[in-house]
Amino acid sequence: MGEFELIRRYFFPIAEAGNTSAVLLGPGDDCAIQRVEPGRDLVFSVDTLVEGVHFPRDYDPEKLGWRSLAVAASDLAAMGADPVCFTLALTLPDADPDWLHAYAAGLASAAAQFGLSLAGGDTTRGPLTLSLQVHGTVPQGQALQRSGARAGDYVCVSGTLGEAGAALKFLGSQNPGPDEQSVLDRYHYPASRLSLGAALRGCASATVDISDGLVADLGHILEASGVAASIDIAKLPLSATLNRLVGEEAVNLAMNAGDDYELCITISPKAWEGLPEEIRSQLTIIGEVTSGEGLAITHEGQSLAPAAGGYDHFRT
Amino acid sequence: MGEFELIRRYFFPIAEAGNTSAVLLGPGDDCAIQRVEPGRDLVFSVDTLVEGVHFPRDYDPEKLGWRSLAVAASDLAAMGADPVCFTLALTLPDADPDWLHAYAAGLASAAAQFGLSLAGGDTTRGPLTLSLQVHGTVPQGQALQRSGARAGDYVCVSGTLGEAGAALKFLGSQNPGPDEQSVLDRYHYPASRLSLGAALRGCASATVDISDGLVADLGHILEASGVAASIDIAKLPLSATLNRLVGEEAVNLAMNAGDDYELCITISPKAWEGLPEEIRSQLTIIGEVTSGEGLAITHEGQSLAPAAGGYDHFRT
Repeated sequence: MGEFELIRRYFFPIAEAGNTSAVLLGPGDDCAIQRVEPGRDLVFSVDTLVEGVHFPRDYDPEKLGWRSLAVAASDLAAMGADPVCFTLALTLPDADPDWLHAYAAGLASAAAQFGLSLAGGDTTRGPLTLSLQVHGTVPQGQALQRSGARAGDYVCVSGTLGEAGAALKFLGSQNPGPDEQSVLDRYHYPASRLSLGAALRGCASATVDISDGLVADLGHILEASGVAASIDIAKLPLSATLNRLVGEEAVNLAMNAGDDYELCITISPKAWEGLPEEIRSQLTIIGEVTSGEGLAITHEGQSLAPAAGGYDHFRT
Repeated sequence: MGEFELIRRYFFPIAEAGNTSAVLLGPGDDCAIQRVEPGRDLVFSVDTLVEGVHFPRDYDPEKLGWRSLAVAASDLAAMGADPVCFTLALTLPDADPDWLHAYAAGLASAAAQFGLSLAGGDTTRGPLTLSLQVHGTVPQGQALQRSGARAGDYVCVSGTLGEAGAALKFLGSQNPGPDEQSVLDRYHYPASRLSLGAALRGCASATVDISDGLVADLGHILEASGVAASIDIAKLPLSATLNRLVGEEAVNLAMNAGDDYELCITISPKAWEGLPEEIRSQLTIIGEVTSGEGLAITHEGQSLAPAAGGYDHFRT
């Protein structure tokens, strides 16, 4: 079976995964066609993963399939967008049928989970590189952005932090125990907080997804909004698993490790009070937005002096 | 200056190149936002170029900037779409300021020429690879597709064919003559037939852009439409330049060489008669659609027997 037939067989079924009524023409022509409903806007983002840079060499292709779509979908979550479809630009050293089959299987699982149908793509020969562009929609004017944080807002994060970062220690582990397996799953199969993001439209003042670490990504909100913030490390949501696995290093990982793909949001106290309990239970208040610039770190209210050059003592 | 600053300085101005009123949020947040006017649909396509596969190693970055956007925009032309914006996923071995500056200059020229504004992207470290996704719009239901060719339609191509293919012989030429420079420019700076494609909406029955060669790309129309065709090599539009440079090889190049980025279309005789002379003058009738399957090649009406395995005697 030729490369084109392999791709048709393994990938074209993923065109049925998501909001298929919005994709008027899927893979196979010069372009795909998407209908954006009246009163909504298109929201889109592209993410590239390179072998040896963003994932290890000889990484399990099924996990890569999930992960490559999840990290892109996470940007839709950060905008509060409802998922629609995606394109896949796949550069491969060779057309290994086993690899393609496993990659497509992981991709199909994620596509079904996130509600994203494959709309088109390009397959080329070269060093293993994946660029996925995800498309969603939002009611006009309601996209969440990085620039809306205001002094007095709470700083919140979803889920728990640091586990994907801890997983990097165990990637080569032959016989991971239950705790190790738990954090490895966080790394291999990141969730995308799509339904949480959509629920925060009209409520959160600013959002970002945590791909590069809390300090770095919250920093993007502060810069875009022209504000400062203070967060208390005693309030960071750390799982019991993470504390058992890495002990005191948990705070460092939660602050600075990437790959968690949780959301960091800012929200006014009034909007917070108005959130349904079901949404609040997915979020933890870890600090507040202040005027000025920069990020202050406290521990149970006591200032921690940043090391010279920033918060390097928190860096992993 | 850091990598992020370089990108901000060189690339963000390209966000102003095209239909900026349709791009509500450009580069710098988790996603970009595009408004699709009521009554229109989004049309999009992604193309990847890999160093050493789709362009030579150490290829001039300014030319690469133009070329990378032109080949993607050509897919919009083939759908009859009006251009809006694009994303750039740029994987680079290092952040060489001279390279980035020259690449962005070529990209900016093409973006201004084609009316495509930069809406977002991703920059990563790795082997030089570029994935560009272009966005356009069409009035609902009016996108040109590959599947509409019917027996009795004319087969037409735009412009002249084979020159980009001939250019491959002269890529390393230190002192190209005027003819050589002319075909080199066709390779380095392909046009995208955007205005022609838009003018053919509601007129052409099927369209494709010629990226892989006339025989291969017309084959996509025939397969998608479930029809056959006959083309006459005596009718192929060959430039005097090409004839001077390569003599009898011109027909082979026009049939099988890629990189021309002209349009191949099918159109009913009645629709052809209705086309404005200004549009007809950009097209040459080279054959007709027939029932059945496959592509027959004639020379002034006489059948040419295809070689075993297809039209291999036409392959370059």
